[in-house]
Amino acid sequence: MILHPVPLPGGVCAPRGFSASGVPAGIKPSGRPDVALVATRRLASAAGVFTTNRVVAAPILVCKEHLEDGLARAIIVNAGCANACTGAQGLRDARRMTELTASLLGLDPDDVLVASTGVIGRRLPMERVEDGIRAAVCELSEQGGESAAMAIMTTDTRPKLAAAEVKTPEGPVRVGGMCKGSGMIAPNMATMLAFLTTDAAVEAPLLQSLLSAVAEQTFNCVTVDGDTSTNDTLLLLANGASGVTVHPNSPAEAALRAALLQVCTALSRELARDGEGATKLVAVHVTGAASPAEARRAALAIANSPLVKTALFGNDPNWGRILCAAGYSGASLVPERLELTLCGVPLVRAGEPLPFDATAASAALRATTHPADPAHAAEVVVHLGAGNAEATVWTCDLSYDYVRINAEYTT
Amino acid sequence: MILHPVPLPGGVCAPRGFSASGVPAGIKPSGRPDVALVATRRLASAAGVFTTNRVVAAPILVCKEHLEDGLARAIIVNAGCANACTGAQGLRDARRMTELTASLLGLDPDDVLVASTGVIGRRLPMERVEDGIRAAVCELSEQGGESAAMAIMTTDTRPKLAAAEVKTPEGPVRVGGMCKGSGMIAPNMATMLAFLTTDAAVEAPLLQSLLSAVAEQTFNCVTVDGDTSTNDTLLLLANGASGVTVHPNSPAEAALRAALLQVCTALSRELARDGEGATKLVAVHVTGAASPAEARRAALAIANSPLVKTALFGNDPNWGRILCAAGYSGASLVPERLELTLCGVPLVRAGEPLPFDATAASAALRATTHPADPAHAAEVVVHLGAGNAEATVWTCDLSYDYVRINAEYTT
Repeated sequence: MILHPVPLPGGVCAPRGFSASGVPAGIKPSGRPDVALVATRRLASAAGVFTTNRVVAAPILVCKEHLEDGLARAIIVNAGCANACTGAQGLRDARRMTELTASLLGLDPDDVLVASTGVIGRRLPMERVEDGIRAAVCELSEQGGESAAMAIMTTDTRPKLAAAEVKTPEGPVRVGGMCKGSGMIAPNMATMLAFLTTDAAVEAPLLQSLLSAVAEQTFNCVTVDGDTSTNDTLLLLANGASGVTVHPNSPAEAALRAALLQVCTALSRELARDGEGATKLVAVHVTGAASPAEARRAALAIANSPLVKTALFGNDPNWGRILCAAGYSGASLVPERLELTLCGVPLVRAGEPLPFDATAASAALRATTHPADPAHAAEVVVHLGAGNAEATVWTCDLSYDYVRINAEYTT
Repeated sequence: MILHPVPLPGGVCAPRGFSASGVPAGIKPSGRPDVALVATRRLASAAGVFTTNRVVAAPILVCKEHLEDGLARAIIVNAGCANACTGAQGLRDARRMTELTASLLGLDPDDVLVASTGVIGRRLPMERVEDGIRAAVCELSEQGGESAAMAIMTTDTRPKLAAAEVKTPEGPVRVGGMCKGSGMIAPNMATMLAFLTTDAAVEAPLLQSLLSAVAEQTFNCVTVDGDTSTNDTLLLLANGASGVTVHPNSPAEAALRAALLQVCTALSRELARDGEGATKLVAVHVTGAASPAEARRAALAIANSPLVKTALFGNDPNWGRILCAAGYSGASLVPERLELTLCGVPLVRAGEPLPFDATAASAALRATTHPADPAHAAEVVVHLGAGNAEATVWTCDLSYDYVRINAEYTT
């Protein structure tokens, strides 16, 4: 059984039977594309993972209702306005988005999912949104994966797409995806917005369990600023166009899981690498933890520490901040067994600081800045000496540009 | 019974019978004062609150040992090097600091407490530290409160002192204090370093319970960057020089508690106002919470959110970020009852956004920048609609200077 998925272009349109589009509707002041549509010709099984924030945006409430039957045909998305903290009118606006999309595509509104991203606390400019939906329906195309990925961006500097094909005993299946960051990104979520497609045929309960498990290992291991958004939404549609049916505990399920994991890992790394103001992708690996949950807790504390993040921005091997963050995370650790390696430079062994060349360590950090190779990252490896569990979390550094972007966002 | 403590100058030397000093010993590269000493002529009851970080600096281990008998005569402190993550040698260095101080003052080493602050992971330059201790002993003076406060600074821009006198049925007692910030400041701690003195006579168990209670309401309600340090130490010495003995549940205890609360509140606000790169002091008041713990959790989530902090820096009334942080804090809230006021401008009532003048709101925020009046703060008031509990947390904004200071700290 081969579980090595092969990367593909095309994003959400890589799997057969999906089309997509992205159009400018004037919701973003910049005039850039801001309405995206993903649709499938066949009724698809659908699964979703949503923010754990107790302040929940209106489109999430509508999405959850429409997902109750585990079926969907389309996803309508706008950027530039989050439709969160918008009260009863916000809920009516989110429903109207699904109703208009459904009527134009000849669908039941219950089969249309909806998501929004952008500024919180402002109502949607519905006239523009409706014109955008009409244009997006006209533009639907099997080559629309990249246009759709462009249209869901907010402060992202580039679109984020991934897709892969994997073999199963019944034939190949494909998984495609797109997502957007790039601030208000923290775990307990399904990133701000991410949309996945597959042409496998999967019943909704299995699709949901696959999606939840993969989200836990990928999107929920990304943090840019520790802020869990009100709008985080991860959706997966499975339309069965490949002719391959995936049953629980089958080789095909393992293959689909591998493809989902590969696509979601690629998107998650891109989220962190394009975090607001980021100059580098940072991978925090914690080993020797008492449990996987403690490993992730320690990795997240390190990844969210402003002191660690600013030191990484400054190419400063100020490693005490890394152990300090592990220490306050609440994860068990044995001080005499702590180990720390930064970008391949050993800094602590058996809890004792090692002599090291600060200039060389700084140069190793600097070399990870704006890497041309998306696979490249500043690697932080911490061993807690308390057990055998491990976890990896992706984040980025904290730069002047993070402050600039977020001090000047609405006014 | 009058419980209005009167502010006094003098910091830790305001209470009778205490002397202090601060001298430069060359530990800080800047050449600024970096060794501080506080001493009392009479044996004092002593109490301490320490970091909850599992990576604990060597001086804290020594301090805890020396506090076991609840008695102390002196506190020796250095800045410029935290003596944390320094292994067995670090522990020997911390002990040596207490032994040398004790021998020069003619004390038992067990009656000397010790604290360090600065870069983590470097060993103390003991020759300089020892010279500094000798000089600090020579300089001890009842006018030394401000010098000592200067010598414990790291990235602080100004010394932080407070003192107060309060009447009791047996006569007046005084409380004095000093502290230092200004990064790696977060709750579950007793701020990075804070030292308090009083001339009341208080048995150690009562002193400890008073100190723990007051710390919970003051220093544990400050956050600059959410990073809980390895070195957080809060110490209180009570030497009885006032002749006033404080018994449990007496009017004198209430008076002493009021004076401690006043001094610690003043120091806590100064910590936040002088947070690294801060342009404004921010007070986050959460009301309508289900419990005091939930109120504090919501207030801390708002105070630690980089998105909220950068918006405040940019004088940007981007209030959705505030409710978003309350939402992910885990505190119970009723969306239809949420209320939000920012610098006196009502923004949300009954969960619905209110129309507001963004220019005026921005001007109200701008007016809190670098306030001449230390009592001034940018006030964020959030009502959760879930109960009757409330909490206040002090923090600061997140500016370019926070990034600059922390990207360039060791290299």
